[in-house]
Amino acid sequence: MSLLVVGSVALDSVETPFGKADDVLGGSATYFSVSASHQTAVQLVGVVGSDYPVHKLEPLKALGIDLAGLEHAEGESFRWRGRYRHDLNSAETLETRLGVFSHFRPKLPPQFRSAEYVFLANIDPRLQLQVLEQIDKPKLVACDTMNFWIESRRGDLMELLKHVDLITLNDGEARQLTEQANLVQAARWILDKGPRTVLIKKGEHGAFMFTRDSIFYAPAYPLEAVFDPTGAGDSFAGGFMGYLARTNDLSDANLRRAVIVGSAMGSFVVEAFSIERLLDVTRDDIDRRVADFHRLVSFDQGMPT
Amino acid sequence: MSLLVVGSVALDSVETPFGKADDVLGGSATYFSVSASHQTAVQLVGVVGSDYPVHKLEPLKALGIDLAGLEHAEGESFRWRGRYRHDLNSAETLETRLGVFSHFRPKLPPQFRSAEYVFLANIDPRLQLQVLEQIDKPKLVACDTMNFWIESRRGDLMELLKHVDLITLNDGEARQLTEQANLVQAARWILDKGPRTVLIKKGEHGAFMFTRDSIFYAPAYPLEAVFDPTGAGDSFAGGFMGYLARTNDLSDANLRRAVIVGSAMGSFVVEAFSIERLLDVTRDDIDRRVADFHRLVSFDQGMPT
Repeated sequence: MSLLVVGSVALDSVETPFGKADDVLGGSATYFSVSASHQTAVQLVGVVGSDYPVHKLEPLKALGIDLAGLEHAEGESFRWRGRYRHDLNSAETLETRLGVFSHFRPKLPPQFRSAEYVFLANIDPRLQLQVLEQIDKPKLVACDTMNFWIESRRGDLMELLKHVDLITLNDGEARQLTEQANLVQAARWILDKGPRTVLIKKGEHGAFMFTRDSIFYAPAYPLEAVFDPTGAGDSFAGGFMGYLARTNDLSDANLRRAVIVGSAMGSFVVEAFSIERLLDVTRDDIDRRVADFHRLVSFDQGMPT
Repeated sequence: MSLLVVGSVALDSVETPFGKADDVLGGSATYFSVSASHQTAVQLVGVVGSDYPVHKLEPLKALGIDLAGLEHAEGESFRWRGRYRHDLNSAETLETRLGVFSHFRPKLPPQFRSAEYVFLANIDPRLQLQVLEQIDKPKLVACDTMNFWIESRRGDLMELLKHVDLITLNDGEARQLTEQANLVQAARWILDKGPRTVLIKKGEHGAFMFTRDSIFYAPAYPLEAVFDPTGAGDSFAGGFMGYLARTNDLSDANLRRAVIVGSAMGSFVVEAFSIERLLDVTRDDIDRRVADFHRLVSFDQGMPT
């Protein structure tokens, strides 16, 4: 099934305790699409400025990512500069320059309008709503968001929630959006507002998937070395949505598998800067990591205690 | 199999966003033994002062907890006063009065010396070592510790590590002890110092069990209401050790089950103040929660991706 992502395509400069990378590929749509491309073809909608090193996007095309929706605008590209300290838990943003992204108005090429699986990455909820108006009859629409939009665009975000099937957000954002400290209550609050599925990401502490009937929990993979956490959330979403689009099965069992594939992709991307690791990861690597996840959490209930 | 715990028996005064409790039963040995008593008989070694409301310990006897090793000393009992804020993540200690606990020298009654499963709760590692000298030939010795001992008694703690089969500690303590930010590396560091098994507790983010050959992860149960987090770690340890002592099976599969039983007990204790919930929890409740844990993490790997 066709998978569409709308989001940012950026140039990141990142500093971690292990090294430094300047002007490398970044942005939510970039991470998402490369991650998802290991499962299915991806249509990308975003914008880059006249300074963007477009030749660096060639590997994306080779992975089957359709860049027909990537607008080339006059001006500077979106740039993010950040630093991770020793614990790697949270990025310290040193600089954000929105550039052409600040005037981004997503326009879907006609052939993208029939997309069946849609991921609205973290952009202004007004734009996320505009994307939905351009789409025919999607089978599953998922969105991401962030603290900035929860604060500044609450009304639009609440409107968006009525039109999406699934939302991914991190635990802090879930608490901020719902004003509930307890994550189970926060998830219920969101489920009451529209989405049938809520994915709450907890970074190194894994992710919860809540539906009305069930809770599923996937740990983050216990890596011995995390190199650069940038893009883990979008790579998670890419693996998750990519798997769903490929298998076209929205049962609870399949959603659980999709969460694990997403977790696997999130665990790969942090092993190197930018999308590097996602470019050379293989289906075998992914299958092996899914099996590792299975071993990690498996237990036999045995006899009643 | 016989299970022995050596640790504190205290009076706690706790304030949470949901209420207040004064001079209620607390202490590591108390939580541990009540939790473990749902699995097997428990021998407790500890000390209380002349002010201790010993009639409040009657329910423990009814649960099969042998208090022959509970010393009654002249002086004040160990008292802890703490407060949890809205997020319930960490206790703010308002007051600690060690009282008779500061002169505690564990003395095992002769009939306790043949204990096969031993839990050295969080006390001075010098005392933990003294306990081991009084024990014949245990099948499994586990210990807990805390930041205070890691800082002030590192040498004794390192000596203790040579003599225990298993250590439980929280993630911050593991990082402090090993000076490794990464938990997998921290666990390896500890495994090199003696213990065959390392249990790293992450509070609301679950627990890891590391051995040389495998990693197991158990989430914390996603409760809709956490009432009072006090004693969760010791109740976890009690369920874990109690299950091992009852089943007397140290295979990896059974250790995994034990972690889940421990996690279940940790999830019950936080539903009320003090040991209240642990007193009325039933074997059926425990089995149901173990099944809930199974549903929470289960996924079918399906076909290769």
